[in-house]
Amino acid sequence: MDASGEELSDLELENEAEHCGVEQEQEQEQEPETVAIMDAVKVLLQGLGEDINREGIRKTPLRVAKALREGTRGYGQTAKDIIQSALFPEAGLHNGVDQAGGAGGIVVVRDLDFFSYCESCLLPFQVKCHVGYVPSGQRVVGLSKLSRVADVFAKRLQKPQRLADQICSALHHGIKPGGVAVTLHCSHVHFPSMESVFLDSKYPGWVKVQVQSGSGAFENQDADVWMDFFSLLKFRGTDLSKAAGAPNLDAQVWCPSHFSSSKFSTRIESVNPRMIAAVTSILRSLGEDPSRKELLGTPGHFVNWLMSFHNCNVDMKVDMKKLNGFANGRIHCEPNDNGNNLSEKQIQSELNFLFWSQCEHHLLPFYGVVHIGFIRVDGLTPLEKSLLNPVIHFYGLKLQVQERMTRQIAETVSSFLGADIIVVVEASHTCMMSRGIEKFGCTTATIAALGRFSSDAGARAMFLQTIPKTTIGEL
Amino acid sequence: MDASGEELSDLELENEAEHCGVEQEQEQEQEPETVAIMDAVKVLLQGLGEDINREGIRKTPLRVAKALREGTRGYGQTAKDIIQSALFPEAGLHNGVDQAGGAGGIVVVRDLDFFSYCESCLLPFQVKCHVGYVPSGQRVVGLSKLSRVADVFAKRLQKPQRLADQICSALHHGIKPGGVAVTLHCSHVHFPSMESVFLDSKYPGWVKVQVQSGSGAFENQDADVWMDFFSLLKFRGTDLSKAAGAPNLDAQVWCPSHFSSSKFSTRIESVNPRMIAAVTSILRSLGEDPSRKELLGTPGHFVNWLMSFHNCNVDMKVDMKKLNGFANGRIHCEPNDNGNNLSEKQIQSELNFLFWSQCEHHLLPFYGVVHIGFIRVDGLTPLEKSLLNPVIHFYGLKLQVQERMTRQIAETVSSFLGADIIVVVEASHTCMMSRGIEKFGCTTATIAALGRFSSDAGARAMFLQTIPKTTIGEL
Repeated sequence: MDASGEELSDLELENEAEHCGVEQEQEQEQEPETVAIMDAVKVLLQGLGEDINREGIRKTPLRVAKALREGTRGYGQTAKDIIQSALFPEAGLHNGVDQAGGAGGIVVVRDLDFFSYCESCLLPFQVKCHVGYVPSGQRVVGLSKLSRVADVFAKRLQKPQRLADQICSALHHGIKPGGVAVTLHCSHVHFPSMESVFLDSKYPGWVKVQVQSGSGAFENQDADVWMDFFSLLKFRGTDLSKAAGAPNLDAQVWCPSHFSSSKFSTRIESVNPRMIAAVTSILRSLGEDPSRKELLGTPGHFVNWLMSFHNCNVDMKVDMKKLNGFANGRIHCEPNDNGNNLSEKQIQSELNFLFWSQCEHHLLPFYGVVHIGFIRVDGLTPLEKSLLNPVIHFYGLKLQVQERMTRQIAETVSSFLGADIIVVVEASHTCMMSRGIEKFGCTTATIAALGRFSSDAGARAMFLQTIPKTTIGEL
Repeated sequence: MDASGEELSDLELENEAEHCGVEQEQEQEQEPETVAIMDAVKVLLQGLGEDINREGIRKTPLRVAKALREGTRGYGQTAKDIIQSALFPEAGLHNGVDQAGGAGGIVVVRDLDFFSYCESCLLPFQVKCHVGYVPSGQRVVGLSKLSRVADVFAKRLQKPQRLADQICSALHHGIKPGGVAVTLHCSHVHFPSMESVFLDSKYPGWVKVQVQSGSGAFENQDADVWMDFFSLLKFRGTDLSKAAGAPNLDAQVWCPSHFSSSKFSTRIESVNPRMIAAVTSILRSLGEDPSRKELLGTPGHFVNWLMSFHNCNVDMKVDMKKLNGFANGRIHCEPNDNGNNLSEKQIQSELNFLFWSQCEHHLLPFYGVVHIGFIRVDGLTPLEKSLLNPVIHFYGLKLQVQERMTRQIAETVSSFLGADIIVVVEASHTCMMSRGIEKFGCTTATIAALGRFSSDAGARAMFLQTIPKTTIGEL
């Protein structure tokens, strides 16, 4: 591009806009439900020990309210309106047989991506949906309507089995086909646990469940048409046997809020009743009944999740004796980095530290892995990887932005790993798949480079090539 | 699900709604630009030899107009408004160095999926976008804004390099960073050619190009920061070396309309000037200038594409002598299919016949592969696969719906391959990635099963497992 454009645009930093009173106006224009959610979010932010006027989170209440209302708009929609406009007459294969595709004539739309909100904890979860039906009554439905109908039910507080059942039922009554089959692969973020925070643990991926729902010809789970349906998914690359073989969680209690380590939760002195009341008010503002059985525990679960990101919740349990010893050794043995080129052997890569964080702009999870590179010094005790875990979680477990977290980790580890540091963070941001953005599978990578890694592109490249292909963000 | 729901819903077939006059009302309520596009689409449908009152396409003009206006809404948007609300102050790594992430402190968002409209032929093309920037001036931008800004320029008539340049330039002037890098992988549907239609050809995938645009620190294509940027994409699994190594098409003339087989086009007696004028009118209604240099050939290219789907364009060039011989042999040797189970050896699979078609609901391409299975008869001349190609293209190259095409192919091949036939069609529907649905990577599979394949689930399963994993719909 031609980057010569020197003209100054009149963009303003967010905080500068406030002085114009624009924001106050915006707030006043909102609907009562939105204002009620904003008030509740302010209570939650204060409960997290945050200053609600801090730059970066001042607009968070409005962002959260808009995202929640947009993400649950399915309460105001009905599938009937959607299907009604797109039923097309289509002659059947057999005279006398009332099916457009003939026996076994399934129509399957595969790999539809959605997100939904977990009714147990109010966090978004990802849904990969495969939906099929056997046409009947000499009519077929427009393919995109299968996606639109599924979206109506995804945009509510859900659990996987009910979501599958509602999609199936709505399509069955709308299309009146020979049968409907729905398979969902649902993926939910793990909650941070004591084990994951203070021990060296592998990236746990997601909590996953697979659920099915069938009607008509698919009502019997052993019916042959299910075999056809699964065959059509299988050669698309969807390995259903793998999902079936794995210890499938009970889809009714799949949410990690039900089985998250209570050790971690007990670090919170007592659950703040104002925060609980705030989440209850949010549920009501979304059009839900907070006394519905499945929602009774939701405010507690959400507050529990949120309090993982309390500003002073994680102590920096760094073994300072070990780290200082490590640091002292390094100071005396610092290699001359103005001299020869570094070799690959001199760069130490500590990869795939798991982290959780909470986006301060949207109060939504982002999580993934941290990779750290530094200069190896021969003759010293090797670094124990677990020493770095508390540093990462100290900066992860609070309201954050990924760019800041990357910089903070680099600055902190440079105090005991030397001046030459490179930190890479790869993360999935829930705020990129929800809120009308709905970009599934996208991930964000950030780099902070200090000392030699800042000035020496070859050193950066040597470190970067040690990072393996990751599956962050993949279902 | 509980499928007992016997209550009759009051859904109507599309054609029944007409009698209520609902549709006429809908048409009158549209904006003038929408009405102008609808009028133009009616001309195009008539030029294709279609009856514009035929069920299935009666509402196509409205659907096309809505899709085109929605898909080019970027003309009415500016990137400035989007970025302005989401610049956040963020301290830099170094005192005195004006970069939030330190030197090399890139922020990269990877794997953003979009679609855009090809300015050369008016067909949608897919875009996988990776965008990065080096923060500066102590501020960062909300991650989702990188996606929203890219979308503003994708939702216009584009070619890949200009799209990349415009995204890059808008982000540079909006964020005022150290530099911006944009890489796009663009995939465009092939045009049908004589070779592909009448010869046995492999699935050609897509016409693909990769383009880059850089500003600031990325202005120089050999700058080290590009190496960092590509490293961050590489361990995400994006194999850039492969793309770079492949014979990259000139991104300026990537559209297949520029190099599609003229043999096929000459089958059209003369390009209909009313159709050309109709497409020119569409361009004007979208807010474009049809006399802009890059758009001069567009009406001709689009009409050329469209006329591939003229109702009587492809003659059924089936070698009837060969087929009848084949059929006669089979009639006398028909295996007793009421007896023993079929073995895998008895099922003949002819897989991966390439096809193109045009969705009659949205006047948008759908394309993919057809798989055909039938009962093998020992001692007979094996079927020449190329005999089936004309059948498939006869039903593909017209305004269609996938369900109908699957049935028609099954019925036709059963006239010479015997009563036991199974046909599977796998397709990518452009109408599923555009029009506000924007479900990328989803595919539709349909089955038509006749005779033994209709009644015998085991026979279906044996055939289905011979179908390899496909990459239809993948970039």
